[in-house]
Amino acid sequence: MTEHADRTRRPFAIDEGMAILSRTPAALDALLRGLPDGWLAAHEGDGTWCPYDIVGHLIHGERTDWMARLRRILESGDALPFDRFNRGAQFDESKGRPLASLLDEFAELRRENLRALESLRLTPADLERRGLHPELGPVTLGQLLATWVAHDLDHVTQIARVLARQYSDAVGPWRAYLRVISGRQG
Amino acid sequence: MTEHADRTRRPFAIDEGMAILSRTPAALDALLRGLPDGWLAAHEGDGTWCPYDIVGHLIHGERTDWMARLRRILESGDALPFDRFNRGAQFDESKGRPLASLLDEFAELRRENLRALESLRLTPADLERRGLHPELGPVTLGQLLATWVAHDLDHVTQIARVLARQYSDAVGPWRAYLRVISGRQG
Repeated sequence: MTEHADRTRRPFAIDEGMAILSRTPAALDALLRGLPDGWLAAHEGDGTWCPYDIVGHLIHGERTDWMARLRRILESGDALPFDRFNRGAQFDESKGRPLASLLDEFAELRRENLRALESLRLTPADLERRGLHPELGPVTLGQLLATWVAHDLDHVTQIARVLARQYSDAVGPWRAYLRVISGRQG
Repeated sequence: MTEHADRTRRPFAIDEGMAILSRTPAALDALLRGLPDGWLAAHEGDGTWCPYDIVGHLIHGERTDWMARLRRILESGDALPFDRFNRGAQFDESKGRPLASLLDEFAELRRENLRALESLRLTPADLERRGLHPELGPVTLGQLLATWVAHDLDHVTQIARVLARQYSDAVGPWRAYLRVISGRQG
């Protein structure tokens, strides 16, 4: 089913990356919309995020992070570092809003951002253009876009993990077989 | 947002468990349907599963595992252990079928199983009924149902992780910030 031999790694390609980015809002919508509040407020301990927080974080990324950094690279290259990203911004911005409204906003912002990304008609050569991350140092535009994709998936993983671990006790002896609960690798 | 103080654990409740079980097929559909084949065949190394394999595994569970074991408990209690589950069955059963067909089948089987589950009108007392797992020993009906839920979420986690790790190299220095790639806990 795959055109290159190593099935554990893929080089970044815009169309393949966008295939994931365009699906994340609907996947989270299908998983979370209408879930009982107890699930949406579930977390992994003090200072960890619940699904509600994570959707707010994804919205903040759409507003201030990914496309802003991409434009910074196109406009200034590595002459001007990216602005820092506020990883706690969602706690103020989404306060009191129902999850359904956050899911709608995430989907709309993502659609707009992908339209804007497409309209740039980036070439493979553009993916090599360099930017400057305030902490990580030199990065490329392609790495930024690959990170946008992996960041989505990281948070899908997180949401499913947070939900699963709510049943760490409820599953009883089956705990040993459930990697997401046991923490077993491999 | 939650009615009990500990947001890291929930006791199993049928309506809350079904809220997850009923959403998994649509969530996987939204994430996977139409993805380029390279993503669907991605895995984490020899002997690990790709998203396509995982959907096949979920189908096999709907056919042979969860409801069959539930009925075994209702009919025989712990007098007769569960049949063993074949964790590699999907490699024969789904061979050559397009993913779209597997997603359709998973959704249909899940709908049927949840209809059957509802029709049993299980009570809280039923959740304490005992069965016998061939390896784990005594388990309860409630633990079986909680495991069905956590198993879904375990595989959602797995699919998102498998996809994210395809970009382990492509994200460059951002690798340090992406827990799903770095393996960092917490």
